[in-house]
Amino acid sequence: MKPTLATLLATAASAALLLAAPAVADDVEDYIDFFEPLPALPPIPAGTTMSPERIELGRMLFFEPRISASGVISCATCHNPALGWTDRIPRAVGHGGQVGERNTPTVLNSGFLEAQFWDGREPDLEGQALGPIEAEVEMAMTLEEAIDQLNEFEIYREAFAEAFPDVDDPVNPPNVALAIAAFERTLNTPNSPFNRFLKGDRAAMDEQQQRGMMLFVDNGCVACHSGPILSDSMFHRFELPGSTDEGRFVVTGEEQDRFAFRTPTLLNVAVTYPYFNNGSVDNLHDAVNLMGQQMLGQDFEEDELDDIVAFLHALTGEMPRIEIPALP
Amino acid sequence: MKPTLATLLATAASAALLLAAPAVADDVEDYIDFFEPLPALPPIPAGTTMSPERIELGRMLFFEPRISASGVISCATCHNPALGWTDRIPRAVGHGGQVGERNTPTVLNSGFLEAQFWDGREPDLEGQALGPIEAEVEMAMTLEEAIDQLNEFEIYREAFAEAFPDVDDPVNPPNVALAIAAFERTLNTPNSPFNRFLKGDRAAMDEQQQRGMMLFVDNGCVACHSGPILSDSMFHRFELPGSTDEGRFVVTGEEQDRFAFRTPTLLNVAVTYPYFNNGSVDNLHDAVNLMGQQMLGQDFEEDELDDIVAFLHALTGEMPRIEIPALP
Repeated sequence: MKPTLATLLATAASAALLLAAPAVADDVEDYIDFFEPLPALPPIPAGTTMSPERIELGRMLFFEPRISASGVISCATCHNPALGWTDRIPRAVGHGGQVGERNTPTVLNSGFLEAQFWDGREPDLEGQALGPIEAEVEMAMTLEEAIDQLNEFEIYREAFAEAFPDVDDPVNPPNVALAIAAFERTLNTPNSPFNRFLKGDRAAMDEQQQRGMMLFVDNGCVACHSGPILSDSMFHRFELPGSTDEGRFVVTGEEQDRFAFRTPTLLNVAVTYPYFNNGSVDNLHDAVNLMGQQMLGQDFEEDELDDIVAFLHALTGEMPRIEIPALP
Repeated sequence: MKPTLATLLATAASAALLLAAPAVADDVEDYIDFFEPLPALPPIPAGTTMSPERIELGRMLFFEPRISASGVISCATCHNPALGWTDRIPRAVGHGGQVGERNTPTVLNSGFLEAQFWDGREPDLEGQALGPIEAEVEMAMTLEEAIDQLNEFEIYREAFAEAFPDVDDPVNPPNVALAIAAFERTLNTPNSPFNRFLKGDRAAMDEQQQRGMMLFVDNGCVACHSGPILSDSMFHRFELPGSTDEGRFVVTGEEQDRFAFRTPTLLNVAVTYPYFNNGSVDNLHDAVNLMGQQMLGQDFEEDELDDIVAFLHALTGEMPRIEIPALP
């Protein structure tokens, strides 16, 4: 990571020196190319489809609590649409009130990530979707039991048959994953002030937000928080005070991955607090300050922090308008 | 209860004898007067209002999990909009995965009930709303803590001020109850086949459903399941096999109330399974059969059960289309 960051910093820092505070609107144009607007849809993996039938089935399954051992926990419990499709508590609460190890990532725009979970142990949403059903601290149900539950309902048998036509016995775990993933790929947040700004509406962000965007580039935040959802989907070591979570090391056993976590998206970061792998930081000011110290080796000034936080607020897009399904 | 029932049965049974099976469409007219169509709104208690601001605040609070000790349980957890505004499990699962004593009643049309909870310990929705927040087996949070939580959010402080104008410190427990109750009074289910039938659309129920409606009257079900939501809001003794719940006796200490429960609404009964105070019966056929034996002292024939169940399916109305709020 460091070499890339250094290169970027060299380019960006020289640009920063030329900036005079009030002349935001002119110089900001030089920064646009560091970013990419959010596409309407994330990449759709080969061999999958986002047919309306599959998305509709995925919507049902996402809200379905009867594929949990208690009968009351669904994907939407922790990925709560009312709460930025996450839970806004430090660490997830699941089966029997157990508290998990990590903070719940938002589902919003997660189809753009090339590595799922904080430790990237799955490459895509299909790989991610079944994990929480089986996890003892989350939904605590075997996939076999979950399939039995779904098979009890004629409406589910029909919905699977429509979502997976020409398949014998379509009610099976891989198809559960495919349907949930297809639904999740619809959960994107267009039209944030930042995205409108990038697309040409230069009035969409105020001057403080524009200054924040430039600081974000000049200081190298954009080295890891890059691309359309401001995540490189890569792993970076990060010593969060108080955290003992070894992160990606648990997956790879490689020393270089100890305490490394996948870069989270920054889209909607203002509504997906608290922050970091254990959710121990509950506000953007402190989160940005910590990132500056840990990843960039610098202490931001207070006015810089304020500007960057203002920019981060401009990353909140339109929430998906999802109707709660009527389940059988 | 028995005298009322007997009187009704005397009237109804003689009518039943006159019926010839195929002539449903003619004779069914005589039965219309036993029922009342569902009004658009339930009674609004004196001193309350259903202002849009109060309903909107109530919608937020209904979906708000941070007024629970775990931070993940809201009203909508057990009164799940995806599941007929109940949970479709025998007994409610709450804080720490604890299983409560009773089956979760649906919120749908609950504003029409004149007694809340299975034991009727509260007269109205305002009285009901705060109970589950404080209950150790449900949300497990003191009202003082809940108010502190809400007061942390400027958006809630504003929403309370708008819902309760000209009031000092509007963020308080009675106002939480008033707002939730105002929202709940919007959760009604118009346009069921049965309601359309009552309003004049005689094609809205098929012949089997019409036969079921007549059996429902002739056999005296309508004695307790009366009025616009097919509940008299009264208490009736009922010995549910396996249940040790003493019901209303717990509230009054009166011997006559031992094992007595408030009559549940039958609107949407097909989508609010399982049934009875402990949710031990999971299908309408068995529920109707048990009611016949316990309350009416008779064994329905299989074809009678089928007809009554068909009628009960005609009581499912349009579910409220509630958008999930974006919480602060």
